[in-house]
Amino acid sequence: MSKSIKDVAKVAGVSVTTVSRVLNNRGPISEKTREKVFKAMESINYTPNEFARALKLNKTHFIGVSVPSIWHPFFSEFVFHIENRLSRLKYNVLICSNNNDKTREIEFLNMVKQNKVDGIIAITYSDIDRYVSARLPFVSVDRFFTEQVAYVTSDNYWGGKIAASELIKRGCKKIAYIASVARQPNDTLKRKDGFVDGAKEKNCEFVVYEKKEPINDYAMFFSEFFSKYHHIDGIFVVNDQTTLLLLRELNKMGIRVPEDVQIIGYDAFQYFENFDTTLSSIKQPIKEMAESSVDMLLKIIDKEQIPNPVVLPVAFKEGRTTKSLPIYQY
Amino acid sequence: MSKSIKDVAKVAGVSVTTVSRVLNNRGPISEKTREKVFKAMESINYTPNEFARALKLNKTHFIGVSVPSIWHPFFSEFVFHIENRLSRLKYNVLICSNNNDKTREIEFLNMVKQNKVDGIIAITYSDIDRYVSARLPFVSVDRFFTEQVAYVTSDNYWGGKIAASELIKRGCKKIAYIASVARQPNDTLKRKDGFVDGAKEKNCEFVVYEKKEPINDYAMFFSEFFSKYHHIDGIFVVNDQTTLLLLRELNKMGIRVPEDVQIIGYDAFQYFENFDTTLSSIKQPIKEMAESSVDMLLKIIDKEQIPNPVVLPVAFKEGRTTKSLPIYQY
Repeated sequence: MSKSIKDVAKVAGVSVTTVSRVLNNRGPISEKTREKVFKAMESINYTPNEFARALKLNKTHFIGVSVPSIWHPFFSEFVFHIENRLSRLKYNVLICSNNNDKTREIEFLNMVKQNKVDGIIAITYSDIDRYVSARLPFVSVDRFFTEQVAYVTSDNYWGGKIAASELIKRGCKKIAYIASVARQPNDTLKRKDGFVDGAKEKNCEFVVYEKKEPINDYAMFFSEFFSKYHHIDGIFVVNDQTTLLLLRELNKMGIRVPEDVQIIGYDAFQYFENFDTTLSSIKQPIKEMAESSVDMLLKIIDKEQIPNPVVLPVAFKEGRTTKSLPIYQY
Repeated sequence: MSKSIKDVAKVAGVSVTTVSRVLNNRGPISEKTREKVFKAMESINYTPNEFARALKLNKTHFIGVSVPSIWHPFFSEFVFHIENRLSRLKYNVLICSNNNDKTREIEFLNMVKQNKVDGIIAITYSDIDRYVSARLPFVSVDRFFTEQVAYVTSDNYWGGKIAASELIKRGCKKIAYIASVARQPNDTLKRKDGFVDGAKEKNCEFVVYEKKEPINDYAMFFSEFFSKYHHIDGIFVVNDQTTLLLLRELNKMGIRVPEDVQIIGYDAFQYFENFDTTLSSIKQPIKEMAESSVDMLLKIIDKEQIPNPVVLPVAFKEGRTTKSLPIYQY
């Protein structure tokens, strides 16, 4: 027969209110009484339901998720999958659309200390290193802090390498890497390394064109690129958002894609579920990244050790901004 | 001995209510009084405990926001603006990406009763009417429940009317309204009414083509429309998401937009900040809707009366799916 809170109260010799207070970790309760209640629970093998137990263990069942902007298809998809997985586990998701505002990010991290959330998953490009420690239940996505901070990423180096390779396969002779660069080092920098190594391996001429964020005038950013570098016939862009901005500028300049220049972005985000962009891009496994982050965080919260970093595979997704591959290449 | 809000009031020479107002940043408080309270807090070294304060006032400073999918530009922009406004007021946002799952929506609503959130803002198309009452701090967006439930919407009727008018102005002779219809009545139905009235006023031939959600095969949905109705040269589509799906089908069918058929969507959502679609569409004031919802909910939480419904204006946004207006029309 399933035991109730009343049974616990009877065995412990206290009131139901007192048991409830202990279970919910609320109100004034002496240590002695608390012990009595726990012993009674054990003796009759009483298991509080999920919700009560969470409170007893000082768990809120709230998880904080911090992203640069929730109004962005990559991050909103990421949060979508996180929320989906956590809600099945009876967790709720608090979001912080941090706009790379360090102060807001730190405030958000502090919610763990204030017992408002059980842990944090963050995609952050701010200088918050000294606030992130092994003691904080925290999973970083796409950015390595220290060996003591859990992290999930996709294979950015390999992504850059296949971008170079796919452009070269499609006949490009002089390729470029274009990127805005976050102020804090993060895993996306490896996209460049992979691209450079990929180009070198194939003996393909290449250039790297980067600028520190924030870039206020993308039209200027791109036009400077084209005035500086000529005969570029293939471009790998650091992410899809920048690629879309580039395409609008190319359209204005009358440069045809993929006829005059082939373009590969990064992320292969979808504007909404089941609706791709038409970009050729390197596909990040967003769903798997979200789910790994959740699983990792829950392990940390349960006081297991910091799990090893997870590096997930990426793949080329063919869209309309690159030429079709000659048949003999397949 | 630990200091209380009473001590602060005493030292500051103000009432406990005034101190509480300052701490909670609510109600009319002069700068002078605010300063006095803060000085008193400093002098007796009183630190309000964030969490305890919330509990004492029975406020969590958490607000729940429920939308059909956070991975959708309309809803993610909506949540973006809500989060932005609430975070300035030191509130945090819990999201529920409910996927029109009634059970999940009800669970989410119940968080208010469990004191996990102070109130809810929801865009909901589910049958949750009996769970929403005047006693629940709740703001409904784009759906009227009862006079007792606060709600914010945009002028959907007018939106439909200008869609018809803009198509007719641009030379359309036989126009259509295409929509998937949510199972629960909501404000978006008025788009059709406005469209129909707009067409009638201008004596323009029109058809209405609707189907209950969920529509699993949009290609079929659209091809049935075109096989049934001929010579349609202008289409008003219930939202931008459906418009984008329609455009892909038209592209496959070799029907040119706007040459063969002109199309106006609804929402004028942006894929991300500062990045429009190329659709002609009826622009909903998403930011203003989000902000009105927040202001309304906070008023309800402060036990004021249910504010009157807010109906915000919409406007036509010219994109590339309609023809340019002949100059003499301007």
